[in-house]
Amino acid sequence: MKLVRYGRPGKEKPGLIDAGGKLRDLSGKIDDFTADQLSDKALAKLARLNTDRLPLVTGKPRLGVPVAHVGKYIAIGINYIEHAAEAKMRIPREPIVFMKAVTCLCGANDNIILPKDSKKSDWEIELGVVIGKKAQYISEEEALDYVAGYCVANDLSEREFQIERGTQWDKGKGCDTFGPIGPWLVTRDEVPDPQDLEVWLDVNGERMQHGNTKTMIFTVAKIVSYLSHFMTLLPGDVIATGTPPGVGLARDPQVFLKPGDVVVAGVEKLGEQRQKVVAWPGKK
Amino acid sequence: MKLVRYGRPGKEKPGLIDAGGKLRDLSGKIDDFTADQLSDKALAKLARLNTDRLPLVTGKPRLGVPVAHVGKYIAIGINYIEHAAEAKMRIPREPIVFMKAVTCLCGANDNIILPKDSKKSDWEIELGVVIGKKAQYISEEEALDYVAGYCVANDLSEREFQIERGTQWDKGKGCDTFGPIGPWLVTRDEVPDPQDLEVWLDVNGERMQHGNTKTMIFTVAKIVSYLSHFMTLLPGDVIATGTPPGVGLARDPQVFLKPGDVVVAGVEKLGEQRQKVVAWPGKK
Repeated sequence: MKLVRYGRPGKEKPGLIDAGGKLRDLSGKIDDFTADQLSDKALAKLARLNTDRLPLVTGKPRLGVPVAHVGKYIAIGINYIEHAAEAKMRIPREPIVFMKAVTCLCGANDNIILPKDSKKSDWEIELGVVIGKKAQYISEEEALDYVAGYCVANDLSEREFQIERGTQWDKGKGCDTFGPIGPWLVTRDEVPDPQDLEVWLDVNGERMQHGNTKTMIFTVAKIVSYLSHFMTLLPGDVIATGTPPGVGLARDPQVFLKPGDVVVAGVEKLGEQRQKVVAWPGKK
Repeated sequence: MKLVRYGRPGKEKPGLIDAGGKLRDLSGKIDDFTADQLSDKALAKLARLNTDRLPLVTGKPRLGVPVAHVGKYIAIGINYIEHAAEAKMRIPREPIVFMKAVTCLCGANDNIILPKDSKKSDWEIELGVVIGKKAQYISEEEALDYVAGYCVANDLSEREFQIERGTQWDKGKGCDTFGPIGPWLVTRDEVPDPQDLEVWLDVNGERMQHGNTKTMIFTVAKIVSYLSHFMTLLPGDVIATGTPPGVGLARDPQVFLKPGDVVVAGVEKLGEQRQKVVAWPGKK
């Protein structure tokens, strides 16, 4: 299933994209895609619905983050071999873990707002993973059973904030709108092999990033298992699994986002995001 | 006011500690200490209550995290001059920012559960700050107006996970139970000067940490303002403001927590925490 939350920010309703690509309303069936709706049981119940009978949603509503109340947004650094090379970093011996502030989360097609005085805002297309059930110290073999589904994630990063102003990256990773997620949450039954997905990102129509999850250093199963040894993962937690080569920081000359740019980014089977870059609008 | 949430984990009710030190129930007045109850207006309404008329709570219930649904738990590294020296780190030019997973949060007197295979779990007593209203790009001068109150925070840290397994600290900072907060949230009117508070921590009766917030490198006002330039702070967000000297990592020989240890830690005006350290109990 392709699950969505549609409507204005903070007022999203649950829905799904049917076999014909049409948006159907689920608000008569569930309140929202909260943690309890991400379990195998709850998803199986939705899968048994006759989608033809669900109300069609007219127009082109905004799509929000496809999961309500994300508790943690965890991210993995340097997880593609070629990205390690372009970032002039060694291949890590184990996953590099950092966190994105949950206030950075936004819909797949929402504007990217450049932070005030930002000069080095950059893109990072990634495979996103949404946890479906509580995971503590789980093995790699069982890890994918704890995944509700997958989504496209752009792990936007302000490189000056991230790298030049201290050793810890979180400062440049959690700016508002730096976490577009979606357009939809694709349940794991539709992604039999998360290690064979094309990943791409264009800026203003030019292909900047291209890769395939088969060149990940640490697989999704490894990452989910690994993280569960450092913290309890809960339903609704989101994990961004690292980016393939082609970020602006690593280009020669370097390229960063500026107002008016359009970012289009996708992951095979998971849909595509489209963001317009805008300047910080001033104090509200 | 000293605000608390009391009761079993996940079932906490709101309460307050009255002038005589007695626990009074607030569940007849508000549902919980959610974000909306941390505004100046909501707190002023509570302050007008005749506490003598609030129901007394009998027994000694557990105290939970004094804020419900903490969105972000942000922490500042190396923020006391003497701690920078003992950690063999340079005085930072600007605050070092990292994040603690919100799943690490627990009550002030809950057990500290050592992660499986942990050999280097360490303590860090800190002044905690709870945000009361949405803050974006605020100045240092106005920053304290955005604070609902203060609390004791023990920023527990697994040093091997934090330092020896990659460059990013979050891996060793967000383990379950590594975020005891409380016992209570003390509203900011009772803490006229957050830069003059004694801070201490004992392990098994021996004084390990002692300091005063006057030796912070970056003040609370600076930290709140600074963070608001990298991410929007929301009511209920918690900030741990760095630890004074005396952590186990920096001692000679190094000392780390082991099952059976008892940690007692406090901040002047904000009360005291008491945690028993236990081994990881095995897979649930």
